[in-house]
Amino acid sequence: MARYCVIMCGGVGSRFWPFSRSEKPKQFLDFFGSGTTLLQATYERVKPVVSPERIVVVTNKEYAGLVKEQLPEIKEENILLEPARRNTAPCICWAAHHILERDPEASIVTLPSDQLVLKEAAFHKALEKGLEFVEGGDRLLTLGIRPTSPHTGYGYIQRGEPSGTDEILKVKSFTEKPTADVAELFLNSGEFFWNAGIFLWTARNILKAFDKCAPQVATVFADGDYTAAGERGFIEKAFPMSPSISIDYAVMEKADNVYVETVDLGWSDLGSWKALFDISPKGAEGNVSQNCRLLSTDCRGTLFAVQGDKIIVADGLKDYIVADSEKALLIYPIAKEQDLRHVVNEVKNRFGEEFV
Amino acid sequence: MARYCVIMCGGVGSRFWPFSRSEKPKQFLDFFGSGTTLLQATYERVKPVVSPERIVVVTNKEYAGLVKEQLPEIKEENILLEPARRNTAPCICWAAHHILERDPEASIVTLPSDQLVLKEAAFHKALEKGLEFVEGGDRLLTLGIRPTSPHTGYGYIQRGEPSGTDEILKVKSFTEKPTADVAELFLNSGEFFWNAGIFLWTARNILKAFDKCAPQVATVFADGDYTAAGERGFIEKAFPMSPSISIDYAVMEKADNVYVETVDLGWSDLGSWKALFDISPKGAEGNVSQNCRLLSTDCRGTLFAVQGDKIIVADGLKDYIVADSEKALLIYPIAKEQDLRHVVNEVKNRFGEEFV
Repeated sequence: MARYCVIMCGGVGSRFWPFSRSEKPKQFLDFFGSGTTLLQATYERVKPVVSPERIVVVTNKEYAGLVKEQLPEIKEENILLEPARRNTAPCICWAAHHILERDPEASIVTLPSDQLVLKEAAFHKALEKGLEFVEGGDRLLTLGIRPTSPHTGYGYIQRGEPSGTDEILKVKSFTEKPTADVAELFLNSGEFFWNAGIFLWTARNILKAFDKCAPQVATVFADGDYTAAGERGFIEKAFPMSPSISIDYAVMEKADNVYVETVDLGWSDLGSWKALFDISPKGAEGNVSQNCRLLSTDCRGTLFAVQGDKIIVADGLKDYIVADSEKALLIYPIAKEQDLRHVVNEVKNRFGEEFV
Repeated sequence: MARYCVIMCGGVGSRFWPFSRSEKPKQFLDFFGSGTTLLQATYERVKPVVSPERIVVVTNKEYAGLVKEQLPEIKEENILLEPARRNTAPCICWAAHHILERDPEASIVTLPSDQLVLKEAAFHKALEKGLEFVEGGDRLLTLGIRPTSPHTGYGYIQRGEPSGTDEILKVKSFTEKPTADVAELFLNSGEFFWNAGIFLWTARNILKAFDKCAPQVATVFADGDYTAAGERGFIEKAFPMSPSISIDYAVMEKADNVYVETVDLGWSDLGSWKALFDISPKGAEGNVSQNCRLLSTDCRGTLFAVQGDKIIVADGLKDYIVADSEKALLIYPIAKEQDLRHVVNEVKNRFGEEFV
């Protein structure tokens, strides 16, 4: 049974503005100054488990050039270009059809292109075990991370009955973005896990689940032409007709054959500046200096990040994000970071597309 | 009697870091995004009073290229290049010798290259009147600005007896950088004026004053070769031998023939970010947005300045300087701006010359 990987790479990442911009979202950035972008790191991380000719990248057609530039070894036919933004469900449905056309017995790891995984060996082990599990029966599997804080921005998975395989359990419930009180309960119960957005299944079984749980998406892609000759033309027309919906909402929360594999990966979704701050090593005053040289006095709990060779001199900042890109400078309280999406919208309205 | 002007253009302007850097100090910057640098504005401001072929620019030899680039019409022989940094007295002494060689009857306006003067007509009138005054006798004249705040960074001039010419008075005393209490007294007395650093005299009389008040400087330049053929060679050797001393300290505070012309010029010495903040128009929350597009929430009394086409998003800053250049970002309380010199030193020590 051949194993495939689908790297979802079409997001905009506005919570990382101004580094992440619509013309070059965060998955294409070298966030840590390591010489490797998040997409490249994701690709390399998957390679020991899935052979490169079976790694498929799905992205918005706007980013075709970036993907080719950053992953020069990837073959043209392994880059799927979405003609419109429609969230994760249509992306996953198309990719499953595409892979099924190439290999009816394929199993698939589907994952975002912009996460951080510090424990690579554990990650590889988790994928191996998970793939075996989904190859053995009609099951949908998601990776669950043991929560370390009552984060209100994640989806939570409640574990249910054991599956017979260690660390893999039936899912009892999904809860998207709970309130702070509820997240606190979840954290303390020990029964809940963060939904990492890393999914395992066979091509056949996920399409079966689409038919059952999300017919409005399934019909768009059913009976499509996924041959090399016809796929592009078909997708250009069909894809935009899909509703915009996440895989969690379309399938995972509805299907009755969903399992969670509980894992410890040193994982962060890098969903926001706060997430980056939390996982980064702190200096003496609890500040994070991301890829920059900093001279700070009387600053605490502040994240300083620059693009390019630049220094920062700061005095008296407490719990701030200072993020400096070529086009924009953000000086913003960490506590208000959930407002950043609105800020980005406001920037777009007031100053124009070029800044977001 | 021919009228000359000496524009002093060799300063470093570290209190405007990171905009002002030693390789391109503030006089060479277009501070207001007007398309004109401070040096260019100074040159244009003087032209209606002094004919261009008699405007002399004295600068550090390091800035020869910048001067030629920014003042393309100026003749090579009107650019005097200092081989070392020695404050204003040697600069003025050399320039007076240089001009005396060209015209023994010359009168001279000497002024900094980096000030702001909003009332140009008043400036021209003040120079005309002042030049007449110094051409009529052995007198040294300085322009005095009526103070609007108890600024502790300026020199104060106490006016004495009338001179017979309206608005020109004998100077009773000079006080450099008074304490806050004293500055408050000065302000309330009505007898004190800020020393604008704009001086008028004849070449002959200022050299006479050097002989009398500052022989340690005068001897360095006495008997020099100021011919076109010999000046450069002479200065290269002699200039560095002068003590480093200001004209105020060397001559003005000691001479007994010093007068002040009280003027209202819409003047600012633009000595620091605070000075720029004070004279700039404020937005709704009392912020200044210097040459940048700003989206601010809950900010007050803050100066935002960028170089280049960039936007700033800020939240919650009170009484700050935010100054962003290509090489460095400064986020600093306005109240601590007198520490900026030390910060610049620290930056140099820690990160290297290239950043200052």
